[in-house]
Amino acid sequence: MNNRHYKNLYDEYLKKVENKLDCIVKDKQPESLYAPFHYLITGGGKRIRPVLTMICTGAVGGNPEDALDCGVAIELLHNFTLVHDDIMDRSPLRRNRQTVHEKWNEASAILTGDVMVGFAYKLLPTSKQHSRSDEIYKVFTRGLIEVCEGQAYDMDFNEQKDVTLDDYLNMIDKKTAKILETSAMIGGHIGNGSEEEINSLQDYANCLGIAFQAQDDLLDLTAEQAELGKKIGQDLFEGKKTFLIIKAIEKAKDEYDKILLNDFLNNNGLKDENQLPEMVTLFTKLNVFDDAISFADTYFEKAKNSTAKLKVNQYTQMLHWLIDTLNKRKK
Amino acid sequence: MNNRHYKNLYDEYLKKVENKLDCIVKDKQPESLYAPFHYLITGGGKRIRPVLTMICTGAVGGNPEDALDCGVAIELLHNFTLVHDDIMDRSPLRRNRQTVHEKWNEASAILTGDVMVGFAYKLLPTSKQHSRSDEIYKVFTRGLIEVCEGQAYDMDFNEQKDVTLDDYLNMIDKKTAKILETSAMIGGHIGNGSEEEINSLQDYANCLGIAFQAQDDLLDLTAEQAELGKKIGQDLFEGKKTFLIIKAIEKAKDEYDKILLNDFLNNNGLKDENQLPEMVTLFTKLNVFDDAISFADTYFEKAKNSTAKLKVNQYTQMLHWLIDTLNKRKK
Repeated sequence: MNNRHYKNLYDEYLKKVENKLDCIVKDKQPESLYAPFHYLITGGGKRIRPVLTMICTGAVGGNPEDALDCGVAIELLHNFTLVHDDIMDRSPLRRNRQTVHEKWNEASAILTGDVMVGFAYKLLPTSKQHSRSDEIYKVFTRGLIEVCEGQAYDMDFNEQKDVTLDDYLNMIDKKTAKILETSAMIGGHIGNGSEEEINSLQDYANCLGIAFQAQDDLLDLTAEQAELGKKIGQDLFEGKKTFLIIKAIEKAKDEYDKILLNDFLNNNGLKDENQLPEMVTLFTKLNVFDDAISFADTYFEKAKNSTAKLKVNQYTQMLHWLIDTLNKRKK
Repeated sequence: MNNRHYKNLYDEYLKKVENKLDCIVKDKQPESLYAPFHYLITGGGKRIRPVLTMICTGAVGGNPEDALDCGVAIELLHNFTLVHDDIMDRSPLRRNRQTVHEKWNEASAILTGDVMVGFAYKLLPTSKQHSRSDEIYKVFTRGLIEVCEGQAYDMDFNEQKDVTLDDYLNMIDKKTAKILETSAMIGGHIGNGSEEEINSLQDYANCLGIAFQAQDDLLDLTAEQAELGKKIGQDLFEGKKTFLIIKAIEKAKDEYDKILLNDFLNNNGLKDENQLPEMVTLFTKLNVFDDAISFADTYFEKAKNSTAKLKVNQYTQMLHWLIDTLNKRKK
């Protein structure tokens, strides 16, 4: 199979996901709750999590279509985290559109996320529908808990000056990688994969998630604004401890460079626009952009190796294609 | 059995619930997430929802102890709604203590509620543990969704001048009654109750919930502050459309009375402290306190009648005792 084939398959699954998302709460009452819900989940995006769920079902020999509902459940879980994180981070934009708390208000954004969790659980199979329903619920609930823990660590880091690369890894493991693991593992269960297969899929997704987050940190500064869908440097203005900033703090020796980084730490983020180009210059000088790229590459490579024990079929091949595609992403 | 027996039984269940709540997240990391979680769920309260779950298991012939975990799951669901509602309502106090968003911050309060839902689901039985697990998940998830819808209606009412008693009933049905229904129905399922028994328990809990909310609206003005655990008249200062205010608007004929009520509507609540005694005087004059009492009484009576089809045992008797006890509550 060639790349075009996998791209077509991805788009086919994506379309099914979009169609399903579009009708989940359409025209439901109360409007104050379901209009922001519908707005949020129909804002586009790569839909990696639900598509990954479907691919992983195929990877263990199941029918990817059977995983559509679970995939959509995970996409809802992901959107629940986005809408609540955006309140906490006071982010005004997401995917080139106003965030829910900006377009409506904070109460709507809280409730929209809350009810979304209910709709997500509603989509998981009952024990009459699938013999692995217990495992699926367990993995899903663990995903919900860990993604909250990850966000809590991320918020803690805003106040913390001495965040190490290990702390960062622990945080993104929970905040970003766990939900991809949830996708992969649930996909594996839907396809009735063996324990060994599900472990492989979990490792794959974990590494993919870590690479993905490091890329996200990088794209915060290197993407085109229109493609990124939010302000360039937003992470730095919010005082986020990204891979780049942690690595820069680790590597900076020059006193003048340290002043800029200490300013960032003491003010919990960049305090004005003209600090942004200074920071970019510093990152370039310290080579941390390249560090992020090779860090991501290492994890993409690990992800690829994690699939070694899976049977070779078009879906396990598609997992490799997905790595290469994400590795080249510009947003 | 006499009232003392039921009181002892209630206290015995309450203690088991408290013990379970106390160890759910004790000393867990990250502290920024689990310290507010632990604070919130160990703040006391009547714990009606988990105890009701246990009683209902007994009412259909099961062992109430088997329902402890599900009861605690529902108590977590209830606390999740409290911590998020308190943010939305900007409430500073709950049960005589600072609310989570006041003691920590809003981000902590959002995340604490979020992760609590995960811990709640974790407590529900798997299909290997209970043959009714599908039904239990379904009822629980419906409860989660409807309580969010109820809160959305309640928030909508803040902006809405023409809220009718029917609108109010629909709102409290979702916001307050549904979670008690969840308790009763899950308790019934844990005890392997028949469909008819579970319907009876649902009706009982629905009526109990509606009566309970009307009482709550009343206690906002008639309770002692120390017992209520929050400011007297808080609902009115927040502009809540309570039973009292809706009934007063319906009954007021005098122009001067209408001015006070219109002021309330136009300002989305009482705007200063001295309006509170005026409003209390108006409510007394219009007899709406008595209306609330007889409204609650009607629903307490309906609740009692709902148990007619249940077999008589000490737990179904305890459901009656619970009605009488709640009817006399001062907080």
